[in-house]
Parts: sequence; structure tokens; C-alpha cells
Amino acid sequence: MPYVNIKITREGATAEQKKALIAGVTQLLVDTLGKNPASTFVIIDEVDTDNWGLGGRPVTELRKESQ
Amino acid sequence: MPYVNIKITREGATAEQKKALIAGVTQLLVDTLGKNPASTFVIIDEVDTDNWGLGGRPVTELRKESQ
Amino acid sequence: MPYVNIKITREGATAEQKKALIAGVTQLLVDTLGKNPASTFVIIDEVDTDNWGLGGRPVTELRKESQ
Amino acid sequence: MPYVNIKITREGATAEQKKALIAGVTQLLVDTLGKNPASTFVIIDEVDTDNWGLGGRPVTELRKESQ
Amino acid sequence: MPYVNIKITREGATAEQKKALIAGVTQLLVDTLGKNPASTFVIIDEVDTDNWGLGGRPVTELRKESQ
Amino acid sequence: MPYVNIKITREGATAEQKKALIAGVTQLLVDTLGKNPASTFVIIDEVDTDNWGLGGRPVTELRKESQ
Repeated sequence: MPYVNIKITREGATAEQKKALIAGVTQLLVDTLGKNPASTFVIIDEVDTDNWGLGGRPVTELRKESQ
Repeated sequence: MPYVNIKITREGATAEQKKALIAGVTQLLVDTLGKNPASTFVIIDEVDTDNWGLGGRPVTELRKESQ
Repeated sequence: MPYVNIKITREGATAEQKKALIAGVTQLLVDTLGKNPASTFVIIDEVDTDNWGLGGRPVTELRKESQ
Repeated sequence: MPYVNIKITREGATAEQKKALIAGVTQLLVDTLGKNPASTFVIIDEVDTDNWGLGGRPVTELRKESQ
Repeated sequence: MPYVNIKITREGATAEQKKALIAGVTQLLVDTLGKNPASTFVIIDEVDTDNWGLGGRPVTELRKESQ
Repeated sequence: MPYVNIKITREGATAEQKKALIAGVTQLLVDTLGKNPASTFVIIDEVDTDNWGLGGRPVTELRKESQ
């Protein structure tokens, strides 16, 4: 009965991509640890780039500089 | 000073229901563990059904099938 | 399919108390939101008092002063 | 490589304030623990006042009373 | 720069299994979302079976019954 | 009433260092957002290096290579 929380920046992940992520991580827990997929939770949080910091700076700024 | 985080799918919980949930879980911590309600935090996260997986599939799909 | 995370200080909660907490919060989600208990997760984290701060100070210190 | 999650009520924190918070907490981890800022994550969650409880009541109500 | 938190019950996962889980979920984020593995965090929490509830009961009890 | 969760690898942080971290982050929330320190929670999680992955590999391995 694993619980998985995945946080990514909110930058346009599609429902199809999130579906593939949910399926993939659930299968990975079956393959590596023998967990039961029926009681595996996966929760994806999409976080605004103003609210995510890396290296002491908001991702909003990092994205502008890398363009 | 407990901290409680409750994650539910975003499917129309009302402010009244969330108020009852906050009151109930705070009281439960008083009754079972003798905790001080004044310093008890309860945070409710409502998660889009595309972003919640169970059994390797998004809840959005599970809800369609169960209709 | 709710997910509940409860963080408390590690100060001697017994298995019986944690069992009552798990049962109580699961029932509360049935009563207030109509959730399915069979797919409700409750995870309790017990945190050392050195690692929990309130009012800018570790609980270890707060406990000593309140004795 | 620390990970920091800060939850605050959604009550108008500006991008500038969140930027200062990200910079400050990253520097604090350098100063107190010698951590590498380049691999420090900071994630800020802004939570609706209906979804945050203190003392068994939603912050929405507490704010109304304190006005 | 995704962040992944995986919670499992503490029931003997080996360092090799956890290594495979870390490698697998990091690769999955590359494959499904094009994320940069160099800034992907994976944190595994192993939770005592007394502290994990499913269906309103501690996993400790569920395990005894399923033996 | 902010809530802050700081996750670091378990590599010998002292009680004094954690105390400084708790004091510092609480003060930072006063300075940047005007938050009330009396209702600010800080929780520090120390995570085994086998259980923390960066770049798809456990920190245990990364530490060995960097020696």
C-alpha cells in the first residue's frame, strides 16, 4: 500500500503525461518491491514557478534567464 | 501541537463539510492523545482527479467507469 | 480514497492510542464526506522533540520549562 | 541537498515576498548546516483559509472574528 | 526539478531495492515529462506498521490476519 | 500560522544546529511575511542517505565517490 507524492512545476503537463506517470510509478513499485497496485496511491502536485525555489531563486526567474 | 494533513479529491466538498472535518479531527486528537486543540493545525488539500492515481490509473478514469 | 498524515511529537503514544486515532479519523471521513474507509490511508509520523519547533524554539526546551 | 516545504494561508503573499522567503531559507541552510544552495529546493504552498484549521476552526472564521 | 516522496511500510526493503526504486522513478520522470535527472530528488520514508492505517485499522493487525 | 517542513540527510546535525534552524526560519517568516511566530510550526526530518536519491542514485553512493 505505497503512497507516492510527485511535485513538479506547473508548466503544462498534460492529462496523458500524468496518466503515464501514475501508471509507471505504480508498476515500478510492483517490479522493485512487490507492492500491490490496487492499494497504491499516486498524488501529483503542480506548483507555480513563483512558488518553487532552486539555488535560492524562484524558477520563474531561472526560466527567463535560460531562454 | 499536532499537525494533520488531509488530502481528498476535488469533487465538491463544501466549506461546511471542511469545517466539520477540521473540528472533528481536532477533537479526536484531544480524545485519543490529550493534545491541545489551540495548537493543532489541520490542512486540507483538494487534488484534481487527473492528479490522483489509484491502482495505476487516474481517478478521472475510475469515476467515468463507475458511472 | 483520502490520505491523512498526522504528525505528533514522539512522547510515548502507545500502539492502542494510535489504533484509536486511525479508526477515529477514518470514521470521521465516512461521516463528514462519505468517503470509502477501505481506501483510506492514515500515516502517523512521530517526530523527536528536538526536531519540532513552536514559537521559534524546539519542543525539547518548551517541555523543560513547563515542568 | 535540503528540501523545504513552507505552507502559508493564501492571503496575498506577493511574488517579491515569496522570492525573499526562498532566498532567505536557502541562505539559512548554508549558514546553519553548511548545505549547498545549488541543490536546495524550496516549495511554497498557499492554502485557502477554508482549508486551514487552527484550534478546531477554519481560518476563514478566525479572520472574520479578529476584524 | 521534480521532487518525489515515496512512503512504504517498514518491512525489510533492502538498500538494493531502494536504489532500484530511486533509479526507476528518476528515469520515469525523464521518459514521461522530459525532466532533468540531475535535479530530481527522491525521498523514501519507511513507516512502522503500527503507524500506517488502511480501512481504519493498523497494518500490524492486517498483517497478522493475512498470515 | 505557517508550517515549515525541512528535510535533510541524516548526517550528524546537532541539537544546537537544529535549534538555530528553527529560530532562523521562524524569524524569516516574521521578517518577510509578517507571520506570528507563536503559531509557527517547524518540523525537521532527518532522512537516511540510503533513502534519499539525487540524479537517480542514493546519496550513500554519492558520498562514497566524493570522498
